[in-house]
Amino acid sequence: MPVIVQKYGGTSVGDAARIHAVADRVVRAREQGYDVVVVVSAMGDTTDDLMNMAHDLSPIPNPRELDMLLTAGERIAMSLLAIAINERGHRAASYTGSQAGIITDSRHGNAKIIDVRPGRILEAVEQGNIVIVAGFQGVSATADVTTLGRGGSDTTAVALADALGAEFCEIYTDVPGVFTADPRVEPSARMLHAVSFEEMLELAASGAKVLQSRSVEYARRSGVLLHVRSSFSDEDGTWVTEEDERMEQALISGVASDATEAKVTLQDVPDRPGVAATIFRAVADEGVNIDMIVQNVSHQGRTDVSFTAPKADLARLRTVMDRVSEEIGANGFQMDDGVAKVSLVGAGMRSHPGVAADMFAALAEEGINIEMISTSAIRVSCVVRAADADRAVRAIHAKFNLAEEVTAREVH
Amino acid sequence: MPVIVQKYGGTSVGDAARIHAVADRVVRAREQGYDVVVVVSAMGDTTDDLMNMAHDLSPIPNPRELDMLLTAGERIAMSLLAIAINERGHRAASYTGSQAGIITDSRHGNAKIIDVRPGRILEAVEQGNIVIVAGFQGVSATADVTTLGRGGSDTTAVALADALGAEFCEIYTDVPGVFTADPRVEPSARMLHAVSFEEMLELAASGAKVLQSRSVEYARRSGVLLHVRSSFSDEDGTWVTEEDERMEQALISGVASDATEAKVTLQDVPDRPGVAATIFRAVADEGVNIDMIVQNVSHQGRTDVSFTAPKADLARLRTVMDRVSEEIGANGFQMDDGVAKVSLVGAGMRSHPGVAADMFAALAEEGINIEMISTSAIRVSCVVRAADADRAVRAIHAKFNLAEEVTAREVH
Repeated sequence: MPVIVQKYGGTSVGDAARIHAVADRVVRAREQGYDVVVVVSAMGDTTDDLMNMAHDLSPIPNPRELDMLLTAGERIAMSLLAIAINERGHRAASYTGSQAGIITDSRHGNAKIIDVRPGRILEAVEQGNIVIVAGFQGVSATADVTTLGRGGSDTTAVALADALGAEFCEIYTDVPGVFTADPRVEPSARMLHAVSFEEMLELAASGAKVLQSRSVEYARRSGVLLHVRSSFSDEDGTWVTEEDERMEQALISGVASDATEAKVTLQDVPDRPGVAATIFRAVADEGVNIDMIVQNVSHQGRTDVSFTAPKADLARLRTVMDRVSEEIGANGFQMDDGVAKVSLVGAGMRSHPGVAADMFAALAEEGINIEMISTSAIRVSCVVRAADADRAVRAIHAKFNLAEEVTAREVH
Repeated sequence: MPVIVQKYGGTSVGDAARIHAVADRVVRAREQGYDVVVVVSAMGDTTDDLMNMAHDLSPIPNPRELDMLLTAGERIAMSLLAIAINERGHRAASYTGSQAGIITDSRHGNAKIIDVRPGRILEAVEQGNIVIVAGFQGVSATADVTTLGRGGSDTTAVALADALGAEFCEIYTDVPGVFTADPRVEPSARMLHAVSFEEMLELAASGAKVLQSRSVEYARRSGVLLHVRSSFSDEDGTWVTEEDERMEQALISGVASDATEAKVTLQDVPDRPGVAATIFRAVADEGVNIDMIVQNVSHQGRTDVSFTAPKADLARLRTVMDRVSEEIGANGFQMDDGVAKVSLVGAGMRSHPGVAADMFAALAEEGINIEMISTSAIRVSCVVRAADADRAVRAIHAKFNLAEEVTAREVH
């Protein structure tokens, strides 16, 4: 039988009623003729609750032990789901990340999958079991339990879909799919039927929370077809796949905003080789993920260097910036956590140079000031005041007529 | 360094404050020069909570999956304790039953330990770690997670103490030790400094809840010295050990009562060879643990056969008894769940035949009727009305002057 992988997030297994609903859905897929491998996250707020218990005992919990603790969450969810499926007269067996052969490096709290050895899962599938696997977790070469970091369950699902040669990987979540904008911000936002891996990556990096970048990157690399859909409905959601003919004609996939980052600006940085390397090596050594980096042309041998970084990392960054600023001879630095990033993403914009200009015009017409700009082949991002973010999303959404299903050809 | 094993029950790790207190105690043992291996139960009511979640989904949860679920409880407790110890600047690492090499048979929910392979634990100890191990759980030959049944964490601790050649095994609980009677029933009850494995076994089987029979049996077989003590105090508790000279002189260890069992009587059973075997084979095949069995001399080729069994198993027993009663040609059966078993335990009674008589006299003086009697070399048990149990305990406690520390020599 063909194999499919289904992944259910924490909201989808949040209580007994929802676990029953998931069990029904899993059984339905089974009865439609699939071998089903299910990846689950921890129920509801379990992970946060466990994290709080750890922090009650230690401000910086031992990372190995924190991973051991957090993995209890998926263990509970997966065995409960297996119990519910067995109750329906189907055979289901649950496996931890370690039992499922999810081999990772040993970076506790943010481990990377380095191998998948699905022998035991395959055997269970061949014996007729519906297999439930704990998301978010793996095991290192030293046989220690690891976790994959935020959104790790999506990555588990994709990695298993790849290793098992699954037909596709369904990501069940609490929204119907990927939208042209956050429907809570722009009510006319339209769900996309399909989106390319590259666009999904840019959307994820731009603040669309439906999928984490890592899992999309894994799917892109391994060619796993993703289907993002709601666990509360039977409607099709959004397919994430290779860019195809039809998709190339779509100019824009969507507009997203992200208010979780702050803007950091090093002032009057001497413009000489190696300065940027010094700055960003120091930041990287702190383990801080930076996003946009902007450095403009210099005046009298000096320039400002700006970047965005997670607000959660600002305290650590301050220490680094104090040191780096002195080391490179800059005139201090500023941190601004009142910003948001608004991004327009679309594979079609590669061949339409007017997109960025249209986006800037939309913001200008709303009187919204642009503080930083960064572009990729399929994305334009602007940093604006956080208070302007929702208005910016709506203005851009309207400018590109995203509420209507249009193609590049029709627009230009 | 000498190794000791400490086991902490669910009450002892019930919240953050108590986990801190346990961490302090573990660190203190470490600083006194011991390599410490700690076995923990799940926090407070966690196991019951998880059990209820499973029963919300299925009246009879799949046993393999129920074990997977329940083992999350110790996982949480052990990693939190390891986090608290690391926070104190000591290195601690936690291990699941599987990682700790607790190999069991595959009887989910009530697995027996068949081997302990402590290689990984020993390595961690040699590297200077305080090692925390999840109690109550193991792994079967098919690499499935198992649980050891009620009181399983005590057995885990004893098994590890044996495998590691520990100096002794401390069982931390919420009472100071083993008493001559339940202090809530008899306020003058006295804590015992020492008790033999055999007496402890009889006391556990008679309703003393401080230690489970299985762990005591394991300790007796392997010669592991047990120390039962309170996690809320630094006072010494009760040592459970080989019977020695001093102990032989003590007539009685204590009196215990147990109201968890019911009395089942098969009436007018034909007295011919093989009848008892038929009855108790059928009961055993249902997995029901029976305790006292009493069959008196027969009249006109017929006799009554009575036994006690857990009240929780009465529904299952009824089906068996219906069948067996017909098969052997008995005149039906009665079940009585209004009884309690009161037992007097003491190694010294072997050489003092008057003990049973004194016990019966104590009950007679209180006007308490005895419904069944069963004796072993170091125990006398009487089944009485449940309502009379506490009064019976107090009467017997007084009759044998158990509030005073006396020896056999002084009594007789």
